Amino acid sequence: TCFFDDVLTWSGVSAATPTEEMNGAGNLMDFLDEPFPDVGTYEDFHTIDWLREKSRDTDRHRKITSKSKESMWELIKSLLDAWSGWVVMLLIGLLSGTLAGVIDLAVDWMTDLKEGVCLSAFWYSHEQCCWTSNETTFDDRDKCPQWQKWAELMTGHAEGAGAYVLNYFLYVLWALLFSFLAVSLVRVFAPYACGSGIPEIKTILSGFIIRGYLGKWTLLIKTVTLVLAVSSGLSLGKEGPLVHVACCCGNLFCSLFSKYSKNEGKRREVLSAAAAAGVSVAFGAPIGGVLFSLEEVSYYFPLKTLWRSFFAALVAAFTLRSINPFGNSRLVLFYVEYHTPWYMAELVPFILLGVFGGLWGTLFIRANIAWCRRRKTTQLGKYPVLEVIAVTGITAVLAYPNPYTRRSTSELISELFNDCGALESSQLCDYINNPNMSRPVDDIPDRPAGPGVYNALWQLALALIFKIVITIFTFGMKIPSGLFIPSMAVGAIAGRIVGIAVEQMAYHHHDWIIFKNWCRPGADCVTPGLYAMVGAAACLGGVTRMTVSLVVIMFELTGGLEYIVPLMAAAVTSKWVADAFGKEGIYESHIQLNGYPYLDVRDEFTHRTLATDVMRPRRNDPPLAVLTQDSTTVEDVETLIKDTDYNGFPVVVSRESERLIGFVQRRDLTLAIKNARQKQDGVVSSSVVYFTEDAPQLLASNPQPLKLRRILNLSPFTVTDHTPMETVVDIFRKLGLRQCLVTRSGRLLGIITKKDVLRHMAQMMNQDPESIMFN
Amino acid sequence: TCFFDDVLTWSGVSAATPTEEMNGAGNLMDFLDEPFPDVGTYEDFHTIDWLREKSRDTDRHRKITSKSKESMWELIKSLLDAWSGWVVMLLIGLLSGTLAGVIDLAVDWMTDLKEGVCLSAFWYSHEQCCWTSNETTFDDRDKCPQWQKWAELMTGHAEGAGAYVLNYFLYVLWALLFSFLAVSLVRVFAPYACGSGIPEIKTILSGFIIRGYLGKWTLLIKTVTLVLAVSSGLSLGKEGPLVHVACCCGNLFCSLFSKYSKNEGKRREVLSAAAAAGVSVAFGAPIGGVLFSLEEVSYYFPLKTLWRSFFAALVAAFTLRSINPFGNSRLVLFYVEYHTPWYMAELVPFILLGVFGGLWGTLFIRANIAWCRRRKTTQLGKYPVLEVIAVTGITAVLAYPNPYTRRSTSELISELFNDCGALESSQLCDYINNPNMSRPVDDIPDRPAGPGVYNALWQLALALIFKIVITIFTFGMKIPSGLFIPSMAVGAIAGRIVGIAVEQMAYHHHDWIIFKNWCRPGADCVTPGLYAMVGAAACLGGVTRMTVSLVVIMFELTGGLEYIVPLMAAAVTSKWVADAFGKEGIYESHIQLNGYPYLDVRDEFTHRTLATDVMRPRRNDPPLAVLTQDSTTVEDVETLIKDTDYNGFPVVVSRESERLIGFVQRRDLTLAIKNARQKQDGVVSSSVVYFTEDAPQLLASNPQPLKLRRILNLSPFTVTDHTPMETVVDIFRKLGLRQCLVTRSGRLLGIITKKDVLRHMAQMMNQDPESIMFN
Repeated sequence: TCFFDDVLTWSGVSAATPTEEMNGAGNLMDFLDEPFPDVGTYEDFHTIDWLREKSRDTDRHRKITSKSKESMWELIKSLLDAWSGWVVMLLIGLLSGTLAGVIDLAVDWMTDLKEGVCLSAFWYSHEQCCWTSNETTFDDRDKCPQWQKWAELMTGHAEGAGAYVLNYFLYVLWALLFSFLAVSLVRVFAPYACGSGIPEIKTILSGFIIRGYLGKWTLLIKTVTLVLAVSSGLSLGKEGPLVHVACCCGNLFCSLFSKYSKNEGKRREVLSAAAAAGVSVAFGAPIGGVLFSLEEVSYYFPLKTLWRSFFAALVAAFTLRSINPFGNSRLVLFYVEYHTPWYMAELVPFILLGVFGGLWGTLFIRANIAWCRRRKTTQLGKYPVLEVIAVTGITAVLAYPNPYTRRSTSELISELFNDCGALESSQLCDYINNPNMSRPVDDIPDRPAGPGVYNALWQLALALIFKIVITIFTFGMKIPSGLFIPSMAVGAIAGRIVGIAVEQMAYHHHDWIIFKNWCRPGADCVTPGLYAMVGAAACLGGVTRMTVSLVVIMFELTGGLEYIVPLMAAAVTSKWVADAFGKEGIYESHIQLNGYPYLDVRDEFTHRTLATDVMRPRRNDPPLAVLTQDSTTVEDVETLIKDTDYNGFPVVVSRESERLIGFVQRRDLTLAIKNARQKQDGVVSSSVVYFTEDAPQLLASNPQPLKLRRILNLSPFTVTDHTPMETVVDIFRKLGLRQCLVTRSGRLLGIITKKDVLRHMAQMMNQDPESIMFN
Repeated sequence: TCFFDDVLTWSGVSAATPTEEMNGAGNLMDFLDEPFPDVGTYEDFHTIDWLREKSRDTDRHRKITSKSKESMWELIKSLLDAWSGWVVMLLIGLLSGTLAGVIDLAVDWMTDLKEGVCLSAFWYSHEQCCWTSNETTFDDRDKCPQWQKWAELMTGHAEGAGAYVLNYFLYVLWALLFSFLAVSLVRVFAPYACGSGIPEIKTILSGFIIRGYLGKWTLLIKTVTLVLAVSSGLSLGKEGPLVHVACCCGNLFCSLFSKYSKNEGKRREVLSAAAAAGVSVAFGAPIGGVLFSLEEVSYYFPLKTLWRSFFAALVAAFTLRSINPFGNSRLVLFYVEYHTPWYMAELVPFILLGVFGGLWGTLFIRANIAWCRRRKTTQLGKYPVLEVIAVTGITAVLAYPNPYTRRSTSELISELFNDCGALESSQLCDYINNPNMSRPVDDIPDRPAGPGVYNALWQLALALIFKIVITIFTFGMKIPSGLFIPSMAVGAIAGRIVGIAVEQMAYHHHDWIIFKNWCRPGADCVTPGLYAMVGAAACLGGVTRMTVSLVVIMFELTGGLEYIVPLMAAAVTSKWVADAFGKEGIYESHIQLNGYPYLDVRDEFTHRTLATDVMRPRRNDPPLAVLTQDSTTVEDVETLIKDTDYNGFPVVVSRESERLIGFVQRRDLTLAIKNARQKQDGVVSSSVVYFTEDAPQLLASNPQPLKLRRILNLSPFTVTDHTPMETVVDIFRKLGLRQCLVTRSGRLLGIITKKDVLRHMAQMMNQDPESIMFN
């Protein structure tokens, strides 16, 4: 999404040559007597072969199982191996929970540092400072002498225009400092630490290699810069980056066990679980986290992973709770409890909020992608630090005057979600109380809004516009930036405004036919906080197109099934509205923007093309480069390797019959010939290379032939030329292939690589964009 | 599981011939100009071809999309088609919610009918009767003059030995009547209505056809007999059968839309969602229901289905709640709320309960399977009605004297789960109160047990033994019978006993080192109800091997993450213990017992066999029956069809070259030749059949050849003979194949069907049972 240009060196789908795909590891190299170093690993920016990884793991497993019968020690080793998955999950849970707790605490402190400092202990946040103070009363929780704003500390005056300007200035200064630090750290130490990371993690989980993306440096720098970026007050959240951080933890612990570190397939199972742990700590919603990983991020998600993800997510959530960063021993980020039910008639505003969410999602995705494309293609991309500084400056300058944008976005959402209790002192709860009414704690009837509420409405409307605009420019900058919180903020603001409007309408016009049936005067009918929550769900759904996981996360926040219907109505509407303008969520759009080879499980391929339309060579291309089983010489092979950049060659019985017998990787071929030339006597350029069991019948004058059957993959995947492409796509998707050979009546015709498939899908999609709308 | 022998006519995996599998539908019959009737449907007890179903749906979809541009009406039709999935979900939710509500109400009433009758309105259950009565006081909720036991009604005496005996007698009589009615209805009208249905639904969802299993009669009879069976007091539950009922509803609504009724693949998507709705209403746990469908029942579960399942599950849950059968406007079956947290040290008894659950699971599965096998193979199976009557008689006679077995099992579980509040009047809550202590409503410290508790403990122990034994004989009888409730009851009883033991230990020995740290005297440390819940989860997990869905269902019952760790600890332990004795849960065991062709997604195939070891023909078999592309005569084909019972034939270029060009289904071949002989002039026995594009060059004297390319599947699935079987298994599983051809160097060697794969897996499993233990 946001890498520096000097890092991004691989070309996207559209520019790729058909054979790049097959570079990399040697298939079936396990059969080699002396494996060369790096065998079984993949090159950077290449696709893994899921089937091969799986069969390698089965081999490993088989070996351990058969060894385990030999001795007690081997048995223990095999048991340890069987348990290592759970150990990794436990470690991931513990570390990602701890990191999330530390990040929460640090963000809290540094966000408050922009406004002032705690005199009794500078490392206390505003809230902690006043909690520990004895002079704090319940009514004035926010004020205590220990906490001093910068102006008060420096000049002694807490009030007045001078103090305001000084505080303003320092607020902007701190913000600039934090964001400058963040972008510099990212730029210098870990360019991969930028962005939300979810598009890349989706790509990695689908079987792509991006070395260092989940490395230790990325983990460290992303954690530190995430704190800085969030504290700087930019319109970004920590949820997406937390998923990245958790995946880095997962990758880190994979390296402890060869079972995971040496198998890219198994590693991805761990990473899927780590993603679940990441969302679990981001929201305090373990079940939602697992479903998020299942629905949004993962590619290969066997049932075993489901169970382990759940374990990791729970451990992470409980670790976070024992750190207790919010100081309320609540697990969830936004805990809310409403006291009144909702009414059927309210579904109308809820669905309208869904429409708003869908429109916001569409607007955001289009504008953000356009801006990111501009950044990639123009001069703008060359000044990432300047860009971050500029956006931070604008954000801070515009945010400070408005109390709803000055504070951290999560605090804002929290306030918007909450219902006005009797003890609430916020501006949003400035309702006019009936003096005759006794004040029950919870069940407060609808009241007319006071001047504070009207004031708040104006400020919220301004905040809404500000958030909408600034988020478009913020997401994709070269700092860690999540999208969940800003999206939810937009929705929560809109929802709260609608909620208050409905509430006031219901109060002032309870004789209207639409209110008559359910809202008697003096009753508590409308809960504006619920509208905020519904709006947040709608906007988040519009941007990410999450469905089940979104509703479940929201359900875990409220902890009751009561409000699931409004949330679902909004989420469904928002998804439908947004889908009508384009199928892709923000993550898929960024994947496409960056040209990652990602074969989406959800895209349905509905065209009538056949394998023969997609395979290489095309009609006017030179014929497919093949090897024969017993008539090619070493020199021929070397010439072929030199002249072509294909990364593998089919082996046929003879050029005339074109009967396929196997597939050999370029890399293996190079290594094997080099090895033979060095170590094997009699192998010269004119030696015949053979892939059969027995050496071919040769004249005595011929030099000694070279047997290469060991590096031949005898079970290459084939389809016939008449196979419909939708079946081919299904095969690639479900079996995780890298390439597939095409035959007709046993004759080899051509080859289809994953990139050919992706390119073909993109072509067909552009031809007929309408056909994807109905599903 | 429980069909009558005269219904069950297909043989299991072990007895099957290799070609049975491929019987049935014609592949690519869509290309025929005039489709014959029944084309595209499958025969009973045959496997569907998932790839083909998918491609048929894509075709249909493509057709609708292209038509939709033609006129407004077609556009509306295409929109209706796109929405039909949601409509089906809504209908399923509404109907299954309603049915569940009706079943709950009827069971309530009929269970009480065994003991007495409501005089004011005979259709009231005991509880309803006394609620509507004005003479009921809160302390004596259970007693009201309107509700009369049978003895009181008939003889006027409510007490005394005579009344007891009369009540006893009538209780047994009612039970026998209900169960006789149930088994007779099943026997006469819908033999498929017996059992829990989950093993069969799993098999159906994996792509097997059992006609009538989800039909209207089954729906009706299963609903009615379920009420009767549960009311008869047998040790069975309604949860599994409710899943079956919901799936019947799903199937019913599928027939409204050709999109679903004509495509077995799409139909299974709907059925997966219906299964989720079934569990959702069974427990009032919609998220748990979706996860149950995903984890336990479904085979092909795309993301779109996830979202729709969730919708169906929610609609069902809310429909049920609006019917409000439990009269408490709670959604969940066993709503509990605990007031004290749990302590780390308590994990020890929780894990012990997990061990107990695992052992119970193993014992139950082994004993039940042994008994079911005995029923299948001996005379016993011939007297299903007598068997049901006998078991009901024994159950009723033994259950009546013990108050914990006399009442319905769900009431028992509910009481065991509940914590003893201050107002509880149950025997289980007969603790000795400190007279000096004021009585707070909720936070009651641990107290010494009174005589009632000790008495209850004895009765519970007897109930435990009784339930364990009788459930083994009950599950699998020819009436609808679920397993969830009896399993949970066993666990809840064991858990409650352990809970009370720990509580009393902690009270009497709070100076012991293990209690010292967390249990001060006068504190409320131990919640016996929580132990019951943990025990229930452990036993259910041991029997079904559910993991995530189990924990989530339990979480939805308690509604708090607080107790998820104990539940998880017990569920994990129970699964591990049970897995150590055998990988299969009760449903898989029954699938195996009945020999259904079910390819489990979870079984990992870890053996080193190759495709060549599994394919037919084997070494000494006659050669593979093939057709040639242009040299077979009509007579040859007819002879081949007559002489063999293979259900499809590969077509090769010539017998010498053995180059594969396609695959033709027996059924299509028969139909096509019959058709040609009738309608096409010049087609005689000596006519040459050809599958090529152009007619072969023939002498003028030869009769007119017959072109059959239209029925040829040009993209048969092939693997090479060197392909490892684990890859082949993966391909069958993920692509849902029915058969796969085996080639070497472009030459056709043999064929592998799904049944070959299943038989091979079963063989390898038996050879080396240990290898599956480590995973």
